[in-house]
Amino acid sequence: MKLSDIKSSEAERQDYYAQLRSQHITPAWIGGGITREPKSKAVPWVWHWRDLRPQAMRAAQLVGTEQAERRVLRLTNPELPGLSASNTMVANIQIVMPGEIARAHRHAGSALRLIIEGKGGYTVVNGARLPMAPGDLVLTPNWTWHDHANDTDGPMIWLDGLDTPLVRMLEAGFYEEYHKETQTIVEGAGSPFAKYGEGGLRPVWEAEPATRYSPLWHYPMSQARAALERLAADRSGGPLDGIILEYTNPVTGGPAMPTIACYIQMLRAGERTQAHRSVCCTNYHVIEGRGYSIVGGTRLDWEDKDVFTVPTWTFREHVNDSDRPAFLFSFTDAPVMKALDLYREEAKGGVYDGSSETRARADRASGHDVGLRRDGAAGSAARP
Amino acid sequence: MKLSDIKSSEAERQDYYAQLRSQHITPAWIGGGITREPKSKAVPWVWHWRDLRPQAMRAAQLVGTEQAERRVLRLTNPELPGLSASNTMVANIQIVMPGEIARAHRHAGSALRLIIEGKGGYTVVNGARLPMAPGDLVLTPNWTWHDHANDTDGPMIWLDGLDTPLVRMLEAGFYEEYHKETQTIVEGAGSPFAKYGEGGLRPVWEAEPATRYSPLWHYPMSQARAALERLAADRSGGPLDGIILEYTNPVTGGPAMPTIACYIQMLRAGERTQAHRSVCCTNYHVIEGRGYSIVGGTRLDWEDKDVFTVPTWTFREHVNDSDRPAFLFSFTDAPVMKALDLYREEAKGGVYDGSSETRARADRASGHDVGLRRDGAAGSAARP
Amino acid sequence: MKLSDIKSSEAERQDYYAQLRSQHITPAWIGGGITREPKSKAVPWVWHWRDLRPQAMRAAQLVGTEQAERRVLRLTNPELPGLSASNTMVANIQIVMPGEIARAHRHAGSALRLIIEGKGGYTVVNGARLPMAPGDLVLTPNWTWHDHANDTDGPMIWLDGLDTPLVRMLEAGFYEEYHKETQTIVEGAGSPFAKYGEGGLRPVWEAEPATRYSPLWHYPMSQARAALERLAADRSGGPLDGIILEYTNPVTGGPAMPTIACYIQMLRAGERTQAHRSVCCTNYHVIEGRGYSIVGGTRLDWEDKDVFTVPTWTFREHVNDSDRPAFLFSFTDAPVMKALDLYREEAKGGVYDGSSETRARADRASGHDVGLRRDGAAGSAARP
Amino acid sequence: MKLSDIKSSEAERQDYYAQLRSQHITPAWIGGGITREPKSKAVPWVWHWRDLRPQAMRAAQLVGTEQAERRVLRLTNPELPGLSASNTMVANIQIVMPGEIARAHRHAGSALRLIIEGKGGYTVVNGARLPMAPGDLVLTPNWTWHDHANDTDGPMIWLDGLDTPLVRMLEAGFYEEYHKETQTIVEGAGSPFAKYGEGGLRPVWEAEPATRYSPLWHYPMSQARAALERLAADRSGGPLDGIILEYTNPVTGGPAMPTIACYIQMLRAGERTQAHRSVCCTNYHVIEGRGYSIVGGTRLDWEDKDVFTVPTWTFREHVNDSDRPAFLFSFTDAPVMKALDLYREEAKGGVYDGSSETRARADRASGHDVGLRRDGAAGSAARP
Repeated sequence: MKLSDIKSSEAERQDYYAQLRSQHITPAWIGGGITREPKSKAVPWVWHWRDLRPQAMRAAQLVGTEQAERRVLRLTNPELPGLSASNTMVANIQIVMPGEIARAHRHAGSALRLIIEGKGGYTVVNGARLPMAPGDLVLTPNWTWHDHANDTDGPMIWLDGLDTPLVRMLEAGFYEEYHKETQTIVEGAGSPFAKYGEGGLRPVWEAEPATRYSPLWHYPMSQARAALERLAADRSGGPLDGIILEYTNPVTGGPAMPTIACYIQMLRAGERTQAHRSVCCTNYHVIEGRGYSIVGGTRLDWEDKDVFTVPTWTFREHVNDSDRPAFLFSFTDAPVMKALDLYREEAKGGVYDGSSETRARADRASGHDVGLRRDGAAGSAARP
Repeated sequence: MKLSDIKSSEAERQDYYAQLRSQHITPAWIGGGITREPKSKAVPWVWHWRDLRPQAMRAAQLVGTEQAERRVLRLTNPELPGLSASNTMVANIQIVMPGEIARAHRHAGSALRLIIEGKGGYTVVNGARLPMAPGDLVLTPNWTWHDHANDTDGPMIWLDGLDTPLVRMLEAGFYEEYHKETQTIVEGAGSPFAKYGEGGLRPVWEAEPATRYSPLWHYPMSQARAALERLAADRSGGPLDGIILEYTNPVTGGPAMPTIACYIQMLRAGERTQAHRSVCCTNYHVIEGRGYSIVGGTRLDWEDKDVFTVPTWTFREHVNDSDRPAFLFSFTDAPVMKALDLYREEAKGGVYDGSSETRARADRASGHDVGLRRDGAAGSAARP
Repeated sequence: MKLSDIKSSEAERQDYYAQLRSQHITPAWIGGGITREPKSKAVPWVWHWRDLRPQAMRAAQLVGTEQAERRVLRLTNPELPGLSASNTMVANIQIVMPGEIARAHRHAGSALRLIIEGKGGYTVVNGARLPMAPGDLVLTPNWTWHDHANDTDGPMIWLDGLDTPLVRMLEAGFYEEYHKETQTIVEGAGSPFAKYGEGGLRPVWEAEPATRYSPLWHYPMSQARAALERLAADRSGGPLDGIILEYTNPVTGGPAMPTIACYIQMLRAGERTQAHRSVCCTNYHVIEGRGYSIVGGTRLDWEDKDVFTVPTWTFREHVNDSDRPAFLFSFTDAPVMKALDLYREEAKGGVYDGSSETRARADRASGHDVGLRRDGAAGSAARP
Repeated sequence: MKLSDIKSSEAERQDYYAQLRSQHITPAWIGGGITREPKSKAVPWVWHWRDLRPQAMRAAQLVGTEQAERRVLRLTNPELPGLSASNTMVANIQIVMPGEIARAHRHAGSALRLIIEGKGGYTVVNGARLPMAPGDLVLTPNWTWHDHANDTDGPMIWLDGLDTPLVRMLEAGFYEEYHKETQTIVEGAGSPFAKYGEGGLRPVWEAEPATRYSPLWHYPMSQARAALERLAADRSGGPLDGIILEYTNPVTGGPAMPTIACYIQMLRAGERTQAHRSVCCTNYHVIEGRGYSIVGGTRLDWEDKDVFTVPTWTFREHVNDSDRPAFLFSFTDAPVMKALDLYREEAKGGVYDGSSETRARADRASGHDVGLRRDGAAGSAARP
């Protein structure tokens, strides 16, 4: 059998293409645009807290919560058209001033809040009151009613992570306003943290959740910090991300929400992680610490409360060149990629630290191992 | 607590916004664009075979397979910017002429082929040779090597369904050319249909697949037709889609591929289905028959081999007003929506026929049932 | 640290043990009985059809179905106290004479019927009428209403496989008689085979089963034979069991019932399988053919319609020394062992053909691989 | 169709039965023994600590750990033939004296230890050193190497829970001695509690476990007590068991081990729970507190450190008639029943508090709801 070898004139082809257009048909062989591996439109970027905080305070002077459903600053990746920090997820700054509320609503998009400043404000999720303190992670997942309030005397500022770009791409957005400005707090509902916050312990009398997000909507920083410090004392962790914990759904062991995975990691003083990349976009928030990351060859310097973004399939390595530990919060769309069997990850130098072997196994199955391998078990912390 | 009530001048705000822009920050409270439910950019549309076939033959005269990696006509939804029939999936027409091949490659996108014309061509998937006859469904899933060949003396034409728009949105595309033009067929590998094609029977000696797509890459039309006719004789089926079968992964019972679900349905002479909508886009191909569908209020007339598209969250109902059965093939991105907990469906009149109750359960859990209910079991075919 | 070295007199100890007994306490260090690997009380055994059939016919002369809830002959393993062929499962012979019925009831135990003789009788399961022909597998799973009837003019005889010994061990038995002698057949319910019997095709309008057993309650021999012959023509199969298919639940891809897995295999003329053993007990029925099996060193000769049993963790190999294919049906409690993480399997010579790697992986995880390995993919049929 | 009506003489039948016996066949219609619901051979029973402790100390005087692989007192249910407290599980008392060890071995049976007395001894599981303090739960699951040591100056006494009767019933036992008396502790392995002990946080660098048991082998009492007290302050819990937590596998959210589920519950001063029963046997240990339980109509009085057993499908209710909280540890074979689809539960008065709806759903599916219903969400604690 041999390839066909048909020739036509440019004029013939142009005439033909015009006909096709009129019939809402496009020839696929023109244009091209196939790439061998993902190349994000987004670029690595850092937003510094020294810039963000004054602008958030200024927003609070200029715009009232009566005028804005939410008073939010969108961190906008310079190369993305959709006004988001990363391809599928926003990383925004929200500020609620003393005495203000953010009205109750719900939407198909899933959201997380990582508290940056202020202690004593709260979020209500489906009737449960969640306290907010710096470093705490608060979830308001897909289609849960939520409102925020600040009854303290200082501003509450937090990082908002949402999958709204993804939901918009997928044309799956629903939105509904609550019939009142704020939800009534359900007495006796109990705090999600009281019920689900202790490791390996689960309330038996609670109905099995019908939804796929974590019923543990509040992950206090005090608990995460204690866990990281305990692991540091154990000299634990891996080479690719130091000591890194995923915030999980205690009912399934899976990610906190079906579309967003959340992590907290500790980079010990002097620690430098090994470069690796994965098919997911990641936004980082520096809870505390100072250092820099090399992201796709670009150095991003960061310190307390900065936000930076790592586009998909871009090598990253983190360096804590200070003399105190750094704590990074991050969130990614890895659960989306894994659910759709699109996830891969790769370490420079061939060491592999990941939790999903889907791609690696697929490649082995087809006889084309891409050279990833799993890290050994514990004991391999990349200490200098 | 009361809402804040801060006022600022337009000039102040514009000055502030300019500052934000220079820092790659965008105020979220301008613009808006929240919708209460999904509104697709795509429109309902039908492409008639009487137009498509001549253009496919003309393409075969104008362009060789040496020039085009694939000789494919993209059906282009009039309102979509991305040259695809639907939001996340393409529905294209591919033609391979006698003696031609389509070279071996693989990609992160998943593909299906529904054979329209020609019998005796074949597709090779990871070394297994799959025959192609009209109405057959052939899968070339995510990252499988595949090439096509036509060693008959007539054209082979098929419908190509791929999730490439989705993979592009998610910035997850990988692509690789095979080291040869065509794969060698593995002797003794056995046909996927021989191994997995009998209902409720599975080869024990085969390793558990490491991938999530169906190992049954070939679903012959002869088998599907027999099943539909057996069910019609049983007077089976439901009100929303008549007698409809999903092509499944026999190893898991799940969809054929993690991102695309495929269906075949029989509309009996005179049958009219009940209007319903779901959060997924759907492309239909009329294997045979004549009738029309009301899609979002638009009547789309169709007959043998036509292709039509139903945007997400758009009511559809199908009418077979002829005196012979109609067979519709369709494929949707419903598995994506279900995996990400974004799926919903709704029937006009409150009858519910769906397989996913995720949303309904979520709503019940939050005390806000949206009024969907499950259809009763069998025996409720909506015959006139 | 050193071991304690305490000595006491025999008299002291006996006195102490007597005290313990009076308090319903037993010292654990006397008695022992730990074994390094499973040693079944059951022995390999074969029951010949030449003996069974006359006795079944005789039973039909001596006992009426008015007197016996079921007219069943229990095949009794010579070394088992519980009157069953194997440790957790019975393999019995049931006979229903022309005009007789077996009354409707249900129980927590799961049952299968493999039809040996007679064509035209039927079983009703939850209102669905299932036809019975020689070689057909019919399921009456856990807590399904079922009754049998013979409206032909010859006897209906089948093999009954049930997990009643298991259910009794676990003290989990429930039993209920139907309020009538026979169930009314639900018109329009459709046959389970029409709905679930085609490979890779599944009715969309049917509600997702709430139970874990297969909704495909009828697996015709005609279909299984066709599949096996197609695979034989493909020269497919593995070394350990030749061409062997598991009867699966098409909704999940899992075993037919949560406690019993069912298989059919074809031994080609002259085929000899490789010896292997697994942690499950297995009962075989020879649908047709003639040969022998070496089971734990004992030769069991078998021919058409014989039944034989292989105790747990006992090496078996099958030899078809005839010049026609042999078809063996078998059922095991492997799903129990797998569900409880107790399954292992091992091949003599180190080749491993199994679907569960639980134990092997566990051993690898603990650094103690027991030397099992997976068979290669297809193409390795152990033909002489 | 009518029932057959065959009559035979007693002599004929006896002669026939003798023939059958000689062929290893038993008529199934004699004997009977079908019961409508489970009736355990075991009886409700309590073993008092005031009896157990002296006998354990006496054992330590009479028998050395050189003589006994384990120095264990079996609590023996008066009506069970197998020398175990309950049908599928033992509840034993083990004592290790200062300076003693219990040698390293592993077995297919799964084990738990609930520490009763002594602080500072430890268990080594697959090289990880687990500390033991009163009330702590320590797991040594299926096929993990484990040894115990007491390097304190007082006795270490704990409750041993194992599924050995189950493994013996299923003829699935494997056993292996370690090549040394004790395992070497792996430096840097990190403590399982450090890695998995914080709720909703999971180490990313750890390989996905290949086994199904919890990687969190140590559940400290300090943590469980804190969780219970936090829930009590929240006025949380359900009517059937007060405030009850299941010890879970944090990787899956499932039970601690595939065959044994473990629980801890707090009965508040004056609390009386509602009677309910389930298809599983349960053994209780009173960590602290005083009260009684009505088990199948029998009153069992208990106080600190007593052990009592509840046979399957037996109504139980607990009463804390003291003025301090009581803490009960319990373990059951419910995961076995659920895995095999044999689980049911029922509350007196129709309130249902369970996590498995398998049976209830199955019954609904077959149109025979057994009247169970789910408890409402939180806030329904049965306080007087």
